[in-house]
Amino acid sequence: MTPEERAQELNLVFPDPPIPLGTYVPAVEAGGLLFVSGMLPLNQQRRVWTGHVGTDLTVTEGREAAKLAALNGLAVARAALGSLNRIRRLARLTVHIAAAPDFGEHAVVADGASELLAGLFKDGGGHARLAVGASSLPAQMSVELELVFELA
Amino acid sequence: MTPEERAQELNLVFPDPPIPLGTYVPAVEAGGLLFVSGMLPLNQQRRVWTGHVGTDLTVTEGREAAKLAALNGLAVARAALGSLNRIRRLARLTVHIAAAPDFGEHAVVADGASELLAGLFKDGGGHARLAVGASSLPAQMSVELELVFELA
Amino acid sequence: MTPEERAQELNLVFPDPPIPLGTYVPAVEAGGLLFVSGMLPLNQQRRVWTGHVGTDLTVTEGREAAKLAALNGLAVARAALGSLNRIRRLARLTVHIAAAPDFGEHAVVADGASELLAGLFKDGGGHARLAVGASSLPAQMSVELELVFELA
Repeated sequence: MTPEERAQELNLVFPDPPIPLGTYVPAVEAGGLLFVSGMLPLNQQRRVWTGHVGTDLTVTEGREAAKLAALNGLAVARAALGSLNRIRRLARLTVHIAAAPDFGEHAVVADGASELLAGLFKDGGGHARLAVGASSLPAQMSVELELVFELA
Repeated sequence: MTPEERAQELNLVFPDPPIPLGTYVPAVEAGGLLFVSGMLPLNQQRRVWTGHVGTDLTVTEGREAAKLAALNGLAVARAALGSLNRIRRLARLTVHIAAAPDFGEHAVVADGASELLAGLFKDGGGHARLAVGASSLPAQMSVELELVFELA
Repeated sequence: MTPEERAQELNLVFPDPPIPLGTYVPAVEAGGLLFVSGMLPLNQQRRVWTGHVGTDLTVTEGREAAKLAALNGLAVARAALGSLNRIRRLARLTVHIAAAPDFGEHAVVADGASELLAGLFKDGGGHARLAVGASSLPAQMSVELELVFELA
């Protein structure tokens, strides 16, 4: 099955690719990789999950934020490449999470993105990952994803 | 026009490439990419913009810090490659901004770097970008850039 | 001398490669690069250095944490590639350090990882590097490394 077929089987609904917040572009292809700009939990350009996870949002809400940001990342990749089928795999995902100094559940939040993305690509969709706590994120968002895809 | 010609037209004055703060090198070429070390708002090795943006510095000052860090990044790339003309484009820029938990203007600050860099490279210099809030940065600096260039 | 020979000469003892904390894999090879997942200061899967550097841990302890995380990164690369000899060099290292807003010794902490890694690879092991302060890290760890190796 191709990534597009898997996306259809999972009934994924992609939001419109988010409009950049400044002087940059949604994604750049270089060296056989697709570098995607920071993906936020927006739905049709509207901020959905703002605040700090563990303080303003529960860990479960943080997971939803990460999942929504991942859907935006797929929407951007699709728009940039024409089809998800040009992607061989997700090489690396970094999940930046707005969180207080005493927060420790970064891995649980990041799995909201990883579980969605792992389901789409070959070999079980395994990807390298980091999860890191940010003091704050653009427009008070709770999660920001850094995605590097390997192209087929 | 080449990047060097554009730099000249914009009257860009490059600082001396910053000396690494530890056991690393300014830049490494690998896989057709140039990975540049964390670029700080230094002028001739001297710290210029310290503190947290939104607290100790205004957003406008944060933009200047990002621009100065970008100039250092170009100086490093130039020293590593011999000429900016070996660069095809900026693939991805991450702007780490020392900021308090309630800060939200990351995109405005990051544009201080993006606007400068976008003016230099082909196709309008579009690059993928993240902006992230850091709790603190090396030597109390306000901004740190992570640059990945694609080579021609 | 090869990286494996240097590791032997330095009497490096590698911990077992850490088990991922979620739905991801330890490392992914793409585009001639090896992207390694976030490496933490674990010893045989046990958390060793928790807390914030400069607050809960001294800078010297933070350096030890960075060194231990680097050993984990080498263990993961070795398991993924079969041998460190498949690595040409470390292309870029990012050291995320859990730190309070007034911390400034990121470069000293990061050198705990850089000094170990620089000793192993050719040309003196020079790598590009960033050091960034995180508000918090997974499972309250003090340091998390982001490693990108170039393959031979």
